Amino acid sequence: MARSTAYLKTYRVGRKLRLKDIDPGARPAASSSREADDARLAELAIEIDRLQDLLYANGSAGRPPKLLLVLQGMDTSGKDGTARSVFRQCSPLGVRVAAFKAPTEVERAHDFLWRVHAVAPRAGEVVVFNRSHYEDVLVPFVEGWIDAAERQRRLAHINAFERLLHDSGTTIVKCFLHISKDEQRERLQARLDDPAKRWKFQVGDLETREKWKAYLAAYETALAATSTACAPWHVVPADSKSNRNLMIATLVAQALAGMKLKPPKPDFDPAAVRVV
Amino acid sequence: MARSTAYLKTYRVGRKLRLKDIDPGARPAASSSREADDARLAELAIEIDRLQDLLYANGSAGRPPKLLLVLQGMDTSGKDGTARSVFRQCSPLGVRVAAFKAPTEVERAHDFLWRVHAVAPRAGEVVVFNRSHYEDVLVPFVEGWIDAAERQRRLAHINAFERLLHDSGTTIVKCFLHISKDEQRERLQARLDDPAKRWKFQVGDLETREKWKAYLAAYETALAATSTACAPWHVVPADSKSNRNLMIATLVAQALAGMKLKPPKPDFDPAAVRVV
Repeated sequence: MARSTAYLKTYRVGRKLRLKDIDPGARPAASSSREADDARLAELAIEIDRLQDLLYANGSAGRPPKLLLVLQGMDTSGKDGTARSVFRQCSPLGVRVAAFKAPTEVERAHDFLWRVHAVAPRAGEVVVFNRSHYEDVLVPFVEGWIDAAERQRRLAHINAFERLLHDSGTTIVKCFLHISKDEQRERLQARLDDPAKRWKFQVGDLETREKWKAYLAAYETALAATSTACAPWHVVPADSKSNRNLMIATLVAQALAGMKLKPPKPDFDPAAVRVV
Repeated sequence: MARSTAYLKTYRVGRKLRLKDIDPGARPAASSSREADDARLAELAIEIDRLQDLLYANGSAGRPPKLLLVLQGMDTSGKDGTARSVFRQCSPLGVRVAAFKAPTEVERAHDFLWRVHAVAPRAGEVVVFNRSHYEDVLVPFVEGWIDAAERQRRLAHINAFERLLHDSGTTIVKCFLHISKDEQRERLQARLDDPAKRWKFQVGDLETREKWKAYLAAYETALAATSTACAPWHVVPADSKSNRNLMIATLVAQALAGMKLKPPKPDFDPAAVRVV
């Protein structure tokens, strides 16, 4: 059953962004039935697998397509869960997750896009960035390691870099997983309470949480400055996991369908080949 | 003995470039004495080693410096020889040569700057590009694989990319090794005649040689479009190896001296440390 996706426009980031005005608890992609949502997500995951196969098959085409999904959001906003959920039907052969932590010594010895460029999608590949180059305009700015002028330069570098990927056949989907501070408290507490999840908890996360408003403001600046025609941002209300998964799966399916991929033609005459 | 380097300005590429007007046989950096030139080059190589040590020592500084030397030129123009000669005194620890051949399948599956970015200099490092990302606006254009619009986009990407390296502390020196068609004939013939050098000869080089004028024109466009304030090009008359080596060694020594590097201060109180 095809559902209207007109709501997506509302969540696409334009020149200005006020995250306060977007309800993290909204569920525009979800219905009132959990079962129906699960069924719809299962459908979408199968469709994404079909399209990702086509993408992979076209990896040797004249202008091979690539897909980059950038996931950003506060701690516990569900970046891991999204990647698992949206691509659950896909073969790992063509889907790769690149997670970015605090840069290592080697990485810091280069410009901030160096490590990112190195893991960008190759022909026919889907790559999910779990955190990304956007961390480099968030953390260092909020922590006061860089000033507004340096942030501005980095934002320009990001736009030039994403333009390069775009010009080279990469479709870019960027999602900000928008959760509320209350929801984060519950999820952090759950991590603390559950011995199986406790490893995910870091004391430093609490320090970041204390700077919630500063981080939201930094996100507003970064997202508005980099939501370009070739690499737009969507704000995804993420207090509801169903909404988050459905909305991002829809964006991914739309991006893949928009490539209008066909199975590549063989470079030999199939009629002339005989299996004996 | 300090020599005037005022001639360098003449060879710095501006907004327009006519290679026909620059004599490949010129020897602005050389003298009439081969011995004096050799001695001067030996002096420069020692100075470059001293400065490269300082560069390496500052690899963990707050804003660590890096040096990128880009060497471009027709076949046999002396790119290998330059790298060997200019850095002959340096430790290989801090000097790396990255050679770019026709892109592999993996490399072609990415944008054209991907493989280049991956080997860009890290903090405190000198990297020499033997050929470079400039090949991607030369060969494909002359061969008709890309049109002028795509070349234009790539040139813009190159400028943005080099700006990124520059903003991240990389000093960029770019040299076009300018030889005459006659000189190339002699050098190619010498490769063919010398069994020890024959491996360097490829039949494809002759096809490229037939397109000499088209390649010169492509170089003129590329060099003029990318000779920016932060990454200027110099045309180096290269029929004379002495001139070529002296001129490039001078540019490298100037670039390193321009960083005004000092030995980094230790992060402990040396007076409080006792070796017992």
